[in-house]
Amino acid sequence: MTARYVGIAEELRDAIVRGEYAVGAQLPSEAELAVRFSASRGTVRQAVAVLATEGLVGSRQGARRIVLGRERSQSFAELHSFAQWARAMGYRVKGQVLEQRRLGASVTEAVRLALQPGDPVLSVLRLRSLDGEPVMLERTVYAGWIAPAVERIDHDCESITQALFESVGLVFAYGEHLIDAVAAGVQDSQLLGVRRGSPLLRQRRVTTTHEGRPVEWSDDRYRAGSVTFSIRNSVDANPLVRQMGDLRPSS
Amino acid sequence: MTARYVGIAEELRDAIVRGEYAVGAQLPSEAELAVRFSASRGTVRQAVAVLATEGLVGSRQGARRIVLGRERSQSFAELHSFAQWARAMGYRVKGQVLEQRRLGASVTEAVRLALQPGDPVLSVLRLRSLDGEPVMLERTVYAGWIAPAVERIDHDCESITQALFESVGLVFAYGEHLIDAVAAGVQDSQLLGVRRGSPLLRQRRVTTTHEGRPVEWSDDRYRAGSVTFSIRNSVDANPLVRQMGDLRPSS
Repeated sequence: MTARYVGIAEELRDAIVRGEYAVGAQLPSEAELAVRFSASRGTVRQAVAVLATEGLVGSRQGARRIVLGRERSQSFAELHSFAQWARAMGYRVKGQVLEQRRLGASVTEAVRLALQPGDPVLSVLRLRSLDGEPVMLERTVYAGWIAPAVERIDHDCESITQALFESVGLVFAYGEHLIDAVAAGVQDSQLLGVRRGSPLLRQRRVTTTHEGRPVEWSDDRYRAGSVTFSIRNSVDANPLVRQMGDLRPSS
Repeated sequence: MTARYVGIAEELRDAIVRGEYAVGAQLPSEAELAVRFSASRGTVRQAVAVLATEGLVGSRQGARRIVLGRERSQSFAELHSFAQWARAMGYRVKGQVLEQRRLGASVTEAVRLALQPGDPVLSVLRLRSLDGEPVMLERTVYAGWIAPAVERIDHDCESITQALFESVGLVFAYGEHLIDAVAAGVQDSQLLGVRRGSPLLRQRRVTTTHEGRPVEWSDDRYRAGSVTFSIRNSVDANPLVRQMGDLRPSS
């Protein structure tokens, strides 16, 4: 059972991606959308807020919102797996495990996963595609305690997150992400079909359970131009205090 | 007057960056830090939370936190200008305006700034450095209404954000950010001292006032390896509902 606003957000998103609403054009007003979708204005407002979070439409200007872009944009407002995000956006998403092996944790892996160096981990190399084109290479290291459950998952499973929830009830609750740009290495360039040294968007992340127990540490590399990350933020509650010195070094 | 916890966060940050606490090592406990800094445990907890937001230390494991890294990492938990972030981290930050001219807004600029195409804007090209090395190239377009205030600012001003607050009381309140990786163009490579085509981390952003009025639309490009962005997030309040279908396309 999909919430009504999710379905409306999806129809609007499709219309924007198809170009029915051009970049720079105004979305219809809430009242107009409510009539079109036979929904309450509150429901329409929720749907439009989803698109704003994704960066597809801008902040309200008068009664309407402006269409900002048609880029594939992954919001960081909430923690979503790649497959969850891609499906919500209406893309066909695939994943293929290319390598999978048990190893001893390196120092970095141990730090990120709250293990000791040498503790057992499961290393997985996985290629992700959107609408049939390879867009992302995932190098994930799973903590030993979850490794057996990961090993039981089909190698062409769309969503390991979903599979782990269904098989062992695991919920990925918190994410810490480090984002930068790197040059494509040999393996990156072969598997993503790009030139060696060309730019990739890298997301390194630790995902933990509700209790804060690290599940995975991953290095995900996106082909340039395939996906954009979107983030919204604001100043703290009292910008004046901050401006007057809080951020100046105290020394 | 700097809040006590900000000063403690800064001392701890310096200790991590100097290597006094190695990557993978434990921070002292809150009780130990409280004694060391002659502060309450609550104050120490606030200071450590700042470092966690910056990605320097991990989530709590038992009584202690683990040092995760020494990378320059810019948190998106709150909206901060580059200069505010860099100063808070203890870096020497500089900015130099290389070009500045009045133009008519392009379609994209007009959309982002809630203007009409052709409306007056101020285009500024600015090179930013950290500790003397060029790390970021800013291509900012300011809405016409703020242009005169920007033009009055010195070309080697460290923080335009601070200068605009001091001169006209402007507060940058909300940010919408799009993050991706791009290849360095001719001008990028010359000014940042990197090879053409090499990877850059790009942050495009709209910053608005508290009322949601767009002030600037900027394309900022960071030299690969100079700065990492850090983000923390979590699943929504009810992960089960989401997992059971909310994110599946309704069609």
